[in-house]
Amino acid sequence: MEKVKVIIWGFGAMGRGMAEMLAAKKGVHIVGICDLNPDFVGRSMNEILGMKLDHEKVIVQSNIDQLLGTTKADIVLLCTDSFVKGAFEKIKKIVMHKMNCISTAEEMAYPYANEPELASQIDYLAKLYGVTVLGTGINPGFIMDLLVVAMTGVMKDVTHIEAKRVNSLSPFGPTVMHEQGVGITLKDYYKRIMDNELAGHVGFKESVHMISDALGVKLDGFNQQMAPIVTNVDRVSPYGEAKAGTLAGINMTGQGLVNGSVFIDMIHPQQIEPELEGTQTGDYITITGTPNVNLSITPQDHD
Amino acid sequence: MEKVKVIIWGFGAMGRGMAEMLAAKKGVHIVGICDLNPDFVGRSMNEILGMKLDHEKVIVQSNIDQLLGTTKADIVLLCTDSFVKGAFEKIKKIVMHKMNCISTAEEMAYPYANEPELASQIDYLAKLYGVTVLGTGINPGFIMDLLVVAMTGVMKDVTHIEAKRVNSLSPFGPTVMHEQGVGITLKDYYKRIMDNELAGHVGFKESVHMISDALGVKLDGFNQQMAPIVTNVDRVSPYGEAKAGTLAGINMTGQGLVNGSVFIDMIHPQQIEPELEGTQTGDYITITGTPNVNLSITPQDHD
Repeated sequence: MEKVKVIIWGFGAMGRGMAEMLAAKKGVHIVGICDLNPDFVGRSMNEILGMKLDHEKVIVQSNIDQLLGTTKADIVLLCTDSFVKGAFEKIKKIVMHKMNCISTAEEMAYPYANEPELASQIDYLAKLYGVTVLGTGINPGFIMDLLVVAMTGVMKDVTHIEAKRVNSLSPFGPTVMHEQGVGITLKDYYKRIMDNELAGHVGFKESVHMISDALGVKLDGFNQQMAPIVTNVDRVSPYGEAKAGTLAGINMTGQGLVNGSVFIDMIHPQQIEPELEGTQTGDYITITGTPNVNLSITPQDHD
Repeated sequence: MEKVKVIIWGFGAMGRGMAEMLAAKKGVHIVGICDLNPDFVGRSMNEILGMKLDHEKVIVQSNIDQLLGTTKADIVLLCTDSFVKGAFEKIKKIVMHKMNCISTAEEMAYPYANEPELASQIDYLAKLYGVTVLGTGINPGFIMDLLVVAMTGVMKDVTHIEAKRVNSLSPFGPTVMHEQGVGITLKDYYKRIMDNELAGHVGFKESVHMISDALGVKLDGFNQQMAPIVTNVDRVSPYGEAKAGTLAGINMTGQGLVNGSVFIDMIHPQQIEPELEGTQTGDYITITGTPNVNLSITPQDHD
């Protein structure tokens, strides 16, 4: 059987993780990598990842047009963006080269939620060029939405949904520590919120709309909130440190409303070393209906 | 939006349950029912189910050729069989009327497992007539297989799978009590096994093959076992009774082997009033790999 030929566009933590996984699989062949990072351009994948592999040598290139124009691939893994707006032109380029695309952009898990216009354009272009475009990920894309939808598939009716994901940020690197405000003071937290520099979890709007559309329920509102998780004890993780009184992480909550009441309830606290104050990690889906569904996954799937 | 027109073929417990559910939904219209039961033929659905509904009057008919020939429907729900062999000619008939088909036959959840030849014929006919055929159910079809496959979708690699479904037979009626040997003695249990009159759970072979095919793993063996669950206390359920020393139910176990070792482990004890001897009901999926997945659903989904 011919191997699936893959190009990886974006060789950050996500792209490199995918490369390592794919290199260990049968039936897949990495044929190209594009990234702008000067530390990577011109170097081989094997060298960057410290792998000894039978793969042909794949050299990281910085020019995507040249890569797509000269390399025959079945699929491009696009690991460059969080938002549809940023990913759109890249997806368009991939599709117009008649290659399939998988995007890790959080908003691409359900692009109709925030960018219905661009989502329709992607849909149109994909059909025109006869390829597929998939946005996916653990969250959004699976734990707090697709898995919920799957469970409702075995229910007669649904009156309320709660999806709760309690996870630890301890395994993550410096980028995530910064993004999640680990170790900052409350004063800095509010300043960064005012400066619009604290994103928190991106994906509730996507998850909530994926669920409501799947159930054929018309939402009449969507809200989300961010709250600091202030630690009472000193916490240290490989890449993070939060002294007592500073932020161990952020708690995101979100709601999808139907007839003015909360129909979908999303709860997602993320922090380093949650166990130090008795918080157990896990994923919990509680669906009220016929029958009630009470699902838990412990320990969590990784983000 | 035009309603989806549905014919129900088989008006036993399963067909009647589906009718009740569909009658409560928008967008669906039951347009025909076929059953051979003389208690039902000629009577209306509303009367049989004791429902007051706006639906047009649907009368149970016994002649399926006449029903399919004179009624325009989008889909036929086939609730007549457990095995592909029994369902095949009926599915063929439905497909040749250019109607879509959903079958509740356990083996149809993954017909390639036991009937690869007939499964291929169904696939061929469905494509030829431009319709779809879906075999589905809670188990097989969801809890011990599709949900497992979905969870492996967020794993890098998988080395072992255990799916355990511990449920209560208490809500079920006389047919299930008989099928599962509730209340019989060990002597009767072995006699019925020798007479090939005790089926137990039908579906492990389907579940195991659905999982292994989804993962691209080559099985080199499949086994299943049946064991009596002998109660130490008297147990009573609405339709069942098991005196101490008789069967409260049956424990089914099954294994899919890879390289001579158990790769997929299925455990499915079913009994009335399990709590009386400390058994808690629930569904448990434990997958070893990267990352490990430890999923539980309590209380169980109903069968």
